[in-house]
Amino acid sequence: MQDTNATVALPDWLKDIRWSDDGLVPAIAQDVTSGDILMMAWMNAESLKLTAEEGQAVYWSRSRGKLWRKGETSGHQQIVSEIRLDCDEDVILLKVEQKGGMACHTGRRSCFYRKLENGQWQSVDPVLKDPDEIYGKTHSKSDGQQNE
Amino acid sequence: MQDTNATVALPDWLKDIRWSDDGLVPAIAQDVTSGDILMMAWMNAESLKLTAEEGQAVYWSRSRGKLWRKGETSGHQQIVSEIRLDCDEDVILLKVEQKGGMACHTGRRSCFYRKLENGQWQSVDPVLKDPDEIYGKTHSKSDGQQNE
Repeated sequence: MQDTNATVALPDWLKDIRWSDDGLVPAIAQDVTSGDILMMAWMNAESLKLTAEEGQAVYWSRSRGKLWRKGETSGHQQIVSEIRLDCDEDVILLKVEQKGGMACHTGRRSCFYRKLENGQWQSVDPVLKDPDEIYGKTHSKSDGQQNE
Repeated sequence: MQDTNATVALPDWLKDIRWSDDGLVPAIAQDVTSGDILMMAWMNAESLKLTAEEGQAVYWSRSRGKLWRKGETSGHQQIVSEIRLDCDEDVILLKVEQKGGMACHTGRRSCFYRKLENGQWQSVDPVLKDPDEIYGKTHSKSDGQQNE
């Protein structure tokens, strides 16, 4: 895969990060108030730089191969209150205010809505809003409905 | 990299997971009581199967190329109360009781102890115990002190 950071001039704090061979790191979004883990997505250096500059989560969509401003279709932006880095310098944690109260493209609060019970993944969290209402019926899955 | 799942007979719930080309998925560990995010590591199918069977977090150490029972050196095991899967079926969330009250090899509660402030990563969380006391002075970094 192409190094997605090749053309970006990096400030020092971005150079501290141990990017994967693909130029990415996992980024976890946590609700700053409830502590709920909302989702995990990927960032390249440019998306993390933009996240810090704009105060709003910007990821790198691996499936679409482009920057992905969370909420660009749904309006469910993530307003960033903290950016943290782990001890190995290869995972980012964002503490965010989740606009609309839902991070998942299925209309749920969190993407982690399935729980392992009796050897099966069971959906245990409610759908708060029909995805057709969030994205419109004409949207294809590749046009905003998936988290990547 | 070698497919680490090649020799494992998989139950159906493990087949539902979209493993990376390397046969891995990211696994986030969250404190079940406080909601704090403790760490993120990687799992192959065998480690996730063992995690479910033993009720204790077992990761795959990419740097050591072997199973890694969290706490095998430090005694800081993670007792698993929930295993969750995200909407894209490629990230695991563990809700855990963190033995010893610290997940990080630096002796801190969480691995995410650095916060971006004024363009620098600042350590904002206290060291609860000297790593030499946790691991012993004779341990090399590759022998348990690093999270991977």
